[in-house]
Amino acid sequence: MAASAPIKKTVYYGTFVHSKSLSELDICAKGAIGVDENGVIAFVERDVSDVANVIQKYGEWKDAEVVKIEDNGFFFPGFIDTHTHASQHANTGLFGKTTLLSWLETYTFPMESSLSSLSKASTVYSNFVSRTLSHGTTTCAYYATIHVPSTNLLADICLKRGQRALVGRVCMDTMSPDYYRDASVEAVIKDSKASIDYIRSIDPSGFIVKPILTPRFAPSCTASCMSALGALAKQTDAHIQTHISENKSEIALVKSLFPDSQSYTHVYDSADLLTPKTILAHAVHLTHAEVKIIKERGTKISHCPASNTALTSGCAPVRELLNAGLTVGLGTDVSGGFSPSILEECRQAIWVSRFRAMHDGDEAKLSTEEVLYLATRGGAQVVGMEDKVGGFEVGMEWDAQMICLGRVKKEGEQEGRFAGNVDLFGFETPEDKVNKWVYGGDDRNTERVWVRGRLVHKR
Amino acid sequence: MAASAPIKKTVYYGTFVHSKSLSELDICAKGAIGVDENGVIAFVERDVSDVANVIQKYGEWKDAEVVKIEDNGFFFPGFIDTHTHASQHANTGLFGKTTLLSWLETYTFPMESSLSSLSKASTVYSNFVSRTLSHGTTTCAYYATIHVPSTNLLADICLKRGQRALVGRVCMDTMSPDYYRDASVEAVIKDSKASIDYIRSIDPSGFIVKPILTPRFAPSCTASCMSALGALAKQTDAHIQTHISENKSEIALVKSLFPDSQSYTHVYDSADLLTPKTILAHAVHLTHAEVKIIKERGTKISHCPASNTALTSGCAPVRELLNAGLTVGLGTDVSGGFSPSILEECRQAIWVSRFRAMHDGDEAKLSTEEVLYLATRGGAQVVGMEDKVGGFEVGMEWDAQMICLGRVKKEGEQEGRFAGNVDLFGFETPEDKVNKWVYGGDDRNTERVWVRGRLVHKR
Repeated sequence: MAASAPIKKTVYYGTFVHSKSLSELDICAKGAIGVDENGVIAFVERDVSDVANVIQKYGEWKDAEVVKIEDNGFFFPGFIDTHTHASQHANTGLFGKTTLLSWLETYTFPMESSLSSLSKASTVYSNFVSRTLSHGTTTCAYYATIHVPSTNLLADICLKRGQRALVGRVCMDTMSPDYYRDASVEAVIKDSKASIDYIRSIDPSGFIVKPILTPRFAPSCTASCMSALGALAKQTDAHIQTHISENKSEIALVKSLFPDSQSYTHVYDSADLLTPKTILAHAVHLTHAEVKIIKERGTKISHCPASNTALTSGCAPVRELLNAGLTVGLGTDVSGGFSPSILEECRQAIWVSRFRAMHDGDEAKLSTEEVLYLATRGGAQVVGMEDKVGGFEVGMEWDAQMICLGRVKKEGEQEGRFAGNVDLFGFETPEDKVNKWVYGGDDRNTERVWVRGRLVHKR
Repeated sequence: MAASAPIKKTVYYGTFVHSKSLSELDICAKGAIGVDENGVIAFVERDVSDVANVIQKYGEWKDAEVVKIEDNGFFFPGFIDTHTHASQHANTGLFGKTTLLSWLETYTFPMESSLSSLSKASTVYSNFVSRTLSHGTTTCAYYATIHVPSTNLLADICLKRGQRALVGRVCMDTMSPDYYRDASVEAVIKDSKASIDYIRSIDPSGFIVKPILTPRFAPSCTASCMSALGALAKQTDAHIQTHISENKSEIALVKSLFPDSQSYTHVYDSADLLTPKTILAHAVHLTHAEVKIIKERGTKISHCPASNTALTSGCAPVRELLNAGLTVGLGTDVSGGFSPSILEECRQAIWVSRFRAMHDGDEAKLSTEEVLYLATRGGAQVVGMEDKVGGFEVGMEWDAQMICLGRVKKEGEQEGRFAGNVDLFGFETPEDKVNKWVYGGDDRNTERVWVRGRLVHKR
């Protein structure tokens, strides 16, 4: 398997950028990072005037490959997408006049249902994994559909392409269309186990793909279904993902469906679904009491600003969630979100924070540094991989993207081949380059992508 | 001159899409549009099963060129950018922690000042005109700088490239840095006249480039400067552009600078700057009384949502402005805005309207149809060209873009050469294709761009 076979020792040489803390980037202009045969970072050197000196210093690296980046670019950690629906990708951009609940009925359930066809699932999932990789996403938490074979196919595709993934078979045993629902709690558990077993069989190490239990959201699951999934999570030590508090009508619906529960959060908590390995997407309208429980459980949050804006769900109070000590990553939430790009999601997180700031004051604003942290280190914590990915430190693995920006010639056109919409005029500091990328970049700037030191995408 | 030399009669054949009204698109799946030697639309045929029949019907078109679009694309009117600063393009994406007034001091004035260098201006302006054309902008209202030679150079570049443009030499005789300001009212008028005269000399017809008087905004102009510009506008029948009511600190500043004026709008009105040929950018925080005056004067609004969000200026109440009868177009406002793309601005207008909707209710939401109207017909009204551009009708001129989207093969990759991030899976209706483009498209989907029937951009 490509993802575990040894690779050639490699030294990545040039500018690298990663998060030092939520509010600070570490921008190292002359760096050299050594990645060993297992894809693990063996050394990080700074102020390197000549890569030959580094290779000389580390004797056993004399035959290492050198990947150099020009001064119009930098190495950056791979992005982590903590919430997206691979199964909805073909609907991207289609909203009509809907909001969350009507959108599910009109667009989402029919599309997901159609992926019972393995042939269609193969087309859509292959395309989507290519897309997320091309945008620099090295780890992705995916929702598939209720169908075990096509869910497993998604895991196969991720493993083959070398993209780290949590792959979830969706569970929904109530309030769902007749043509697209689980027949019973027993069926939910049987199918969920089948998918867990399959995914663990194809990647026993879990280095690349892992299963994740996926109760769709409280309105789609009976209390007994959720409790059974809570028990299964404990029994199998599996990750869990679901949605919470996305939209006010949805919250009212949950209140009416679970009248004895104190809150949406309590519904999940009663079913033992809030664990340190649980990812809750959205969290737009949580009460303080709910935030407190989520914090106590060590449960993680996936902030999905593009989706929340497109569906008019609301503006999640990310600053408040962070101040309360919650762990937050970014999620593209395709196709509520309209882009598979975490870079786009960084921008959307900035916009949403500015809209909060218009009402709540400047403290609500997220900076470029902060959204990049959420997209990398934050996301790594959300998927429980913060020791392995999200930054460039010795002992972590080389999940990275090579970002290249376009240099403008005197005549006004970009040098060499067209490198997207970011134009460098020569005066830019390394920090300026990062900002130009965040505000104006796209997949054209992501020249190469590696996971565990293996090249998984190249333009 | 390329823009006026006769061209070959051409029939554009395939799907075309344009706005029928603010809320409705006209999507014609099998259309044929004949464009004559002057770039004027001579006929529009619908339900065309074979283009040969059309050519037979119009005898003198038998030698016409045929430009056919495949069913993964459509012809769409060229975009109209009603407000942008070509001179700030090199700063795109650079904001730091600033808002409007501090951003001007930190980033904007130093950059604009540096364009006194014709060599630098040539690089930046050539690059920016290429950019706006590549995003399908066929008409653009540009701010240059205070420098007459480089302002005139921008007009030269637009004329040479064939992009319709209003080109404005910026006027600012107070509260500006010593290194970047007009010396006196006399200097403002002399330099403004010089630029008007030059631009009218290079394109006497005004088919492609026209001058536009450009008092930067009230804080940068003395009352006598504005009055003199109001008089000059009358004398020369020139267009006018400026900023209004972008940010609350700016509004407070205007109030303190013009204590005898009832409002920001009154400041301009007292100087006779509010005419039917005036474009006011932003209009985020206008009072009802101000809206009423602007309506009475027939003055136009450029909505710049990307900039307003990025600088945390506020969310312009576009629905209210439209309901009050104002004429509204879209502006990219680079580099307050972070993209030269009006398609991006369409999305940003949707987001801003959703943020308004979160507080004001659903009526505030702008639909896909509405933002496309603002980007074309609305913009055409703002720049006073609604009889010529913005739609496809007999007698109008062929300012258009050819939009092509990517078809996904069974194996999951796009057919042919990479056509950007929009994926078509085969089930999409023409309306779906428009939505996928608006939500996920970029310059890669703009294959060709024409102004007055002349090809001005090709990927």
